[in-house]
Amino acid sequence: VSEGGTPSAVLQRAKEIVGAENVFTATSDLAPYVVDARKRYSGRALAVARPGSVAETVALVKLCAETRTPLVPQGGNTSLCGASVPDQAGTALVINLSRMNRIRQIDPLNNTMTVEAGCILAAIQQAAADADRLFPLSLAAEGSCEIGGNLSTNAGGVQVLRYGNTRDLVLGLEVVLPSGELWEGLRGLRKDNTGYDLKQLFIGAEGTLGIITAAVLKLFPKPRGVAVAFAGLDSVGQVLRLLSLVQALAGERLTAFELMSDFALRLVLKHRPGSQVPFAREFAQYALIELSDTQTAEAVTPLLESILADAMGQGIVIDAAVAQSESQAAALWALRENVSEAQGAEGRNLKHDVAVPISAIDEFLRVTDAALAAAYPGVRPVTFGHVGDGNLHYNIARPESSNEQAWLAETKAVQKIVHDSVARFGGSISAEHGLGQLKREEILRYKSAVEMDLMRAIKRTLDPLGIMNPGKVL
Amino acid sequence: VSEGGTPSAVLQRAKEIVGAENVFTATSDLAPYVVDARKRYSGRALAVARPGSVAETVALVKLCAETRTPLVPQGGNTSLCGASVPDQAGTALVINLSRMNRIRQIDPLNNTMTVEAGCILAAIQQAAADADRLFPLSLAAEGSCEIGGNLSTNAGGVQVLRYGNTRDLVLGLEVVLPSGELWEGLRGLRKDNTGYDLKQLFIGAEGTLGIITAAVLKLFPKPRGVAVAFAGLDSVGQVLRLLSLVQALAGERLTAFELMSDFALRLVLKHRPGSQVPFAREFAQYALIELSDTQTAEAVTPLLESILADAMGQGIVIDAAVAQSESQAAALWALRENVSEAQGAEGRNLKHDVAVPISAIDEFLRVTDAALAAAYPGVRPVTFGHVGDGNLHYNIARPESSNEQAWLAETKAVQKIVHDSVARFGGSISAEHGLGQLKREEILRYKSAVEMDLMRAIKRTLDPLGIMNPGKVL
Repeated sequence: VSEGGTPSAVLQRAKEIVGAENVFTATSDLAPYVVDARKRYSGRALAVARPGSVAETVALVKLCAETRTPLVPQGGNTSLCGASVPDQAGTALVINLSRMNRIRQIDPLNNTMTVEAGCILAAIQQAAADADRLFPLSLAAEGSCEIGGNLSTNAGGVQVLRYGNTRDLVLGLEVVLPSGELWEGLRGLRKDNTGYDLKQLFIGAEGTLGIITAAVLKLFPKPRGVAVAFAGLDSVGQVLRLLSLVQALAGERLTAFELMSDFALRLVLKHRPGSQVPFAREFAQYALIELSDTQTAEAVTPLLESILADAMGQGIVIDAAVAQSESQAAALWALRENVSEAQGAEGRNLKHDVAVPISAIDEFLRVTDAALAAAYPGVRPVTFGHVGDGNLHYNIARPESSNEQAWLAETKAVQKIVHDSVARFGGSISAEHGLGQLKREEILRYKSAVEMDLMRAIKRTLDPLGIMNPGKVL
Repeated sequence: VSEGGTPSAVLQRAKEIVGAENVFTATSDLAPYVVDARKRYSGRALAVARPGSVAETVALVKLCAETRTPLVPQGGNTSLCGASVPDQAGTALVINLSRMNRIRQIDPLNNTMTVEAGCILAAIQQAAADADRLFPLSLAAEGSCEIGGNLSTNAGGVQVLRYGNTRDLVLGLEVVLPSGELWEGLRGLRKDNTGYDLKQLFIGAEGTLGIITAAVLKLFPKPRGVAVAFAGLDSVGQVLRLLSLVQALAGERLTAFELMSDFALRLVLKHRPGSQVPFAREFAQYALIELSDTQTAEAVTPLLESILADAMGQGIVIDAAVAQSESQAAALWALRENVSEAQGAEGRNLKHDVAVPISAIDEFLRVTDAALAAAYPGVRPVTFGHVGDGNLHYNIARPESSNEQAWLAETKAVQKIVHDSVARFGGSISAEHGLGQLKREEILRYKSAVEMDLMRAIKRTLDPLGIMNPGKVL
């Protein structure tokens, strides 16, 4: 380490770049930046620096490159995989982008919006709505997560079925490369075939290849009519048949198709006593369906009713309720949205964020449920998720006879059963949440050497010094 | 060159790999493989080899890597930029994938289809339709272009507005890397966040980073109702206002929104005498609008009529005709589709495939038309294109006073005026067609050094020997 690279010299220069008031070093100040959202990873940092501009971010990264200081790009720090906190070494500079929260431009005619990385997702949604447009990315953390993190993890959420993942919502990026050079790729074009599509490298790279400082996002026409239904069905197979039917008859309108098992619903009813289920009896599985339309709900609600009547006529759906008001729609959505909280109230369970081809979901669940039941009699899968995307949050609650401590000790063994089964069906062990620190080792079991080598080669090419979010993804 | 790498030794080994009947060396046999679709590039080749399987493709690429033999991946050879033909050196092996034309799997429940690179686009569309699904990629060459080429150029076409470019229609790829290693990335997942999204590297890379041998494509619900209208308007500004209105009221149904100028329409009427325009008078600009719906045309045709009535009430549209039958719809589409042929019949013009932000189209056209008119009095722009994507085929016909030879001599000068203007509006000088050989030098004027360096670094990392489609893109 040269003199200019001693920790105190780096700190001094960081203060000169962003102002002393934007560099935190006291343990109490660092706490919110070094512990992850699920409190699973508690790291240490040299400091947290909060740049207020692209130029400051460039200068910080140049400083890190010059002094070989590891850096951790960070937004709202809501990663569920430990991607946005530093490791234990205490040598890394956390570069937190939250101050860069300007909406640079809204272009309604081009249906685009240029935003800085620190913009909170909900603020972006609101700005789009104010311009009579929709920015469709929507997920549980939207009140605190920032778009730079959404981009870096290629976030999913509840409207992927219609609008795609975050990757599909981006037209251009501005990125500070690990060298400190700035790539100005803020294009607002729907078609541009002039060489390699470089933005794709940085989307979903979890901050290991560069720091995204701004993005051009796609906007969409704002839906005027929304219809929501909750259906009770006999089996996962019937849920998938219903999905096919709804896609055939309402394809372009289908914005959400969510599955939850009866056990998941029971947990919600137990821990959220105000919850209202529109049925007098229990069913094995439930589907929540949302249609959206630029035409009004007067057209789309009867369409959803007629599709469900058709499905009941065919014996696919046993009973169904279509919301007749916004409050009824919200009550139905709450059944699905409260699953995460309800299962937490029941005790800690073992979580898996997996995807398989939609055509394999039924068999995947039967095979995996059976394998888990054989290994752990009485085990209780809390099955729910974005089934229209093949994405299941397949969380495993302990057998009632076991205790929490003993169950948590089985984490790795349970995970292996689930992930091996996912792999057998050609699936993904991280559908939405990324690898971060959490699945960085685990992924080595499932990716080919060719694929890992390609990823490592890309990493070495863009970040030869290895300073960019070390210990994540690779 | 080692003994195993002499041209005759390479040929001998290639014959052992794919069979002598699948290696062409005679000049007459080579002709269709070494001259491009527009007959602008006439190259030479060591041979054309036509592998029948992934294993044979792997073996050919290993042979090329081992012997440092340049190779040119090729599908239907319909590139408009010379990307799929060899250079003049005569040392390259053309690896033509046309024999690998198997549809490996259709999975209607997962809405996916696994196809080999040599499948002709129209055959894929038909197979999807037979499974009651839509594969939406559609373009003029669909009867002969192959999906490997569509993927390698990230092809666009007429339905990008709703379904995206080819890039957006792919879930997984199988790729033979320049080393001859096989990357098996044929996933059929809508969500998979387990590291870098490697398939993005190969899509749109024009065969410079690897050979795509197969892909998992997305399928969509088949539209049951289609409505088509042709509208006459006073200006490009009004066309863009109409686009906004249609998006607001029919957003999810809008599958095409095409612009053509009056001059473009006159060329069609002159050179295709059977063409029928539904108006008694001329307008400055025309828009062709298509809505599609999984519900029947009984719903979507009245919707389009009511939107156009609204637009006429607001003074945006002056006159409009909505097709009342499939044959009327086809006749309206023919007006747009025959522009390319009609302008050819009028004499050779200077073609540009550009994109700008939709909000900039009006000013871009005014400024660029004026700049061209100042430089070349009497010049006649043939303006048409996928205006809903910001993509214009802005082709410039000579002043009637000039002659064809003199006009073609102005190619570079005209191109500079157009492309400089595109750059000023933040646009792309190749929206749909790629760089190939045609725009490989030109792009250096418009991309930053940082971006070119990143592209070159990626190229070096994946293809350190530089054998993969040399002289294209970079």
